[in-house]
Amino acid sequence: MSELLKNLEWRYATKQMDASRPAEQEKIDRILEAIRLTATSSGLQPYEVIVVKNAELKEQIKPHAWNQSQITDCSHLLVFAAWDNYTEERVNMMFDLVNEERGFVNEGWENYRQMILGLYPKRDAEVNYQHAARQAYIGLGTALIAAAEEKVDCTPMEGFVPEEVDTILGLKERGLRSVILLPIGYRADAGDWLVDLKKVRRSKENFITEMN
Amino acid sequence: MSELLKNLEWRYATKQMDASRPAEQEKIDRILEAIRLTATSSGLQPYEVIVVKNAELKEQIKPHAWNQSQITDCSHLLVFAAWDNYTEERVNMMFDLVNEERGFVNEGWENYRQMILGLYPKRDAEVNYQHAARQAYIGLGTALIAAAEEKVDCTPMEGFVPEEVDTILGLKERGLRSVILLPIGYRADAGDWLVDLKKVRRSKENFITEMN
Repeated sequence: MSELLKNLEWRYATKQMDASRPAEQEKIDRILEAIRLTATSSGLQPYEVIVVKNAELKEQIKPHAWNQSQITDCSHLLVFAAWDNYTEERVNMMFDLVNEERGFVNEGWENYRQMILGLYPKRDAEVNYQHAARQAYIGLGTALIAAAEEKVDCTPMEGFVPEEVDTILGLKERGLRSVILLPIGYRADAGDWLVDLKKVRRSKENFITEMN
Repeated sequence: MSELLKNLEWRYATKQMDASRPAEQEKIDRILEAIRLTATSSGLQPYEVIVVKNAELKEQIKPHAWNQSQITDCSHLLVFAAWDNYTEERVNMMFDLVNEERGFVNEGWENYRQMILGLYPKRDAEVNYQHAARQAYIGLGTALIAAAEEKVDCTPMEGFVPEEVDTILGLKERGLRSVILLPIGYRADAGDWLVDLKKVRRSKENFITEMN
């Protein structure tokens, strides 16, 4: 079995974390780097990652996330926060960065910029946010694998009130909306109802259709 | 640098594939297994993967995907297709499967089933589809890493007309809606404008905020 499949088998949505055992910062840094490197639509990277280590902020967030203990027991709470809209400034920021890093202006690339500028900023902000939020899920899929490779535990969470988290972290002012929470830490020795239960997935036959 | 980071650096959205060099089926099988194993919200796995090898079907899809050459030059076209709705049957299918595989009925788990049944099937189908589609992006993030680990190339594509692809593949009748295309194969020796260009990402400082 490949390392990746082993890591995917190993990971699970940790229900009880050991508050006394923080994840090492160098492990967190590699997880964040994996998220930063992965793909997004047109390379726009329309989201950011907020890393909350501050205990008081985690305490404030907890009641807005069904009081799930991992919020405060984790050492690093990752918040995936998507752009609330695709503006001209944001699209140009990424296309300019690409030109700057590659050291030249490419005609095809500039035509593509104009196409995106002609489409995205004119769309409804909610449509754009939903599109940006989807990209954050590519990052989430990446983070789960990166954490498993580092043998640290985490718990992807959609169950929280985004507006409250946005207020606590000051995201609205930055044009961001929280999409997913990902507490990272180490599983506790006891108290986790899920840790010893079998991982269940739809069978290959039920999940994959081959059209030959 | 970890294997994962090396793989993420290696991959890119391949623009020109070698139609004469198919991806090995055992590599595809491991990529599909990675997608099957990764996380989804509440473990519902609300999407399926259609693997199109049939040349005629790929030809039919191509004009509805901006005539991108990878659609027909790839050996395996993966179509991520999300549930068009969360129905009671679908939710129960997954909760029943979990009970069956684990061999027991858990009160907490059954309470959770009732909570989901009380929420999801009552929501608008479009809201449910959007939620399911996001889960497919976790699978996409996983597939990109799995393909890179296998050293095969791929190109994530949102640029296509979902309704047309749904019709060609008969997805509507199955209650599925196509979300993302992922052609898999090998890069061509020539003709790929992107292959030698630098991968550009927002800087760590611009992408990550630490709140200590």
